[in-house]
Amino acid sequence: MIFKQLFDPLSSTYTYLLGCESTGEAMLIDPVIATLERDLAELDKLGLKLAYSVDTHIHADHITSARELKRRTGSRIANPGVDHLPCADVHLEEGKDLTLGSLNLQALHTPGHTDGHFAYRLGDRVFTGDALLIDGCGRTDFQNGNAADLYRSIHGKLFTLPDETLVYPGHDYQQRQVSSIGQEKLRNPRVGMDKTQADFEAIMANLNLPYPKFIDYAVPGNRQCGVCPTDLPEQLEQYCGRMTESVQG
Amino acid sequence: MIFKQLFDPLSSTYTYLLGCESTGEAMLIDPVIATLERDLAELDKLGLKLAYSVDTHIHADHITSARELKRRTGSRIANPGVDHLPCADVHLEEGKDLTLGSLNLQALHTPGHTDGHFAYRLGDRVFTGDALLIDGCGRTDFQNGNAADLYRSIHGKLFTLPDETLVYPGHDYQQRQVSSIGQEKLRNPRVGMDKTQADFEAIMANLNLPYPKFIDYAVPGNRQCGVCPTDLPEQLEQYCGRMTESVQG
Repeated sequence: MIFKQLFDPLSSTYTYLLGCESTGEAMLIDPVIATLERDLAELDKLGLKLAYSVDTHIHADHITSARELKRRTGSRIANPGVDHLPCADVHLEEGKDLTLGSLNLQALHTPGHTDGHFAYRLGDRVFTGDALLIDGCGRTDFQNGNAADLYRSIHGKLFTLPDETLVYPGHDYQQRQVSSIGQEKLRNPRVGMDKTQADFEAIMANLNLPYPKFIDYAVPGNRQCGVCPTDLPEQLEQYCGRMTESVQG
Repeated sequence: MIFKQLFDPLSSTYTYLLGCESTGEAMLIDPVIATLERDLAELDKLGLKLAYSVDTHIHADHITSARELKRRTGSRIANPGVDHLPCADVHLEEGKDLTLGSLNLQALHTPGHTDGHFAYRLGDRVFTGDALLIDGCGRTDFQNGNAADLYRSIHGKLFTLPDETLVYPGHDYQQRQVSSIGQEKLRNPRVGMDKTQADFEAIMANLNLPYPKFIDYAVPGNRQCGVCPTDLPEQLEQYCGRMTESVQG
């Protein structure tokens, strides 16, 4: 398998490029519109044809490049079926794998950060989106998020994978890139094995996080598989890969 | 590949079990004498026959179980050739791979923690022993350790591997289990890409670490591929997997 972990510094999002050596086809998990050109260049450099973009959930902090990737490469848009996005070509469901050459992506419904959130397992790796982060997890206070659901997704589903399973998160804010299920069970301070559901719910209820600055644009844009609004405030233009003169200067 | 990451809590050592599914053979990297029975039980549970034990270096904090594993299973002892241990069956050298079924272990001479230290690369994983740890590195103040050598081993050899290469360290003291070359380049506070050789040498010269409590027993024991001394102080008996009544009580 060809594997690249790509980073968008603006939203601290990881995009994962998975390529099949025998067919020369690839998929991108959680591609970001601001890094569209970089991702296309990466595919080109590796000589891969994009077959699918796959999102873990309706993101609130960046806009997916799924729609633009489809326009530019002919790739198909795969999304959690629970979200019923009319723009998606493939509606992923638990129990149905997304297969591409030698790559077999197992879809795991992991609600809690959002109700439609999916993680994707591929062999000894799991792409956990915002359900499980390294030493953390996604917030649960918007988009039908629910701490009890997230606890059950993590303890009841992700933590039942073998300990050596590699955890590739949807974000990291401290430049960490990879963990393992065993590591998160042992030392995740929010949701490790030493935490009960009540502990976790109390932690999540008291995070006092600020309202996400891009959510009002990101969510409607992502519900259309990646449409950037034309009326963005100037300081947010870079989230759509657009640089205004004043930002550039 | 069958892969298990095993932990010895006494010396915080990771032992890696690598098994070939097609031949049913296995190797253990850095096995610890105190966890001998656990490791044998693990091999048994997985239905694997141990073909090799492979040490990264002459350890100062634990005794290898290489000799006992050979006695109990008929496995062969593979060691860095630089150390010229008469008890080793295979003297590993850079440029010569150790092959076992589908497993191909590439030996990388990475001096600095000790002068004979080797790391082992297998596909997209590298077992870094005590050369490179997660957010750290092994000390360089005994066993012909040398900070300049270690810097060159890390920057000139390990950091030339692809960023996505998984780093499996010889120890971790905070329950972290896995990192990547990209992550260590970005955020290793001692030896990341932002550190010059002079920076690193200054850091290593000022660690003021205590004299290792087991070194005077471990080094001669490991130079014999894993012999436990009979004259251990009572409080160190557990390092040889022996529990005295007073320790048990």
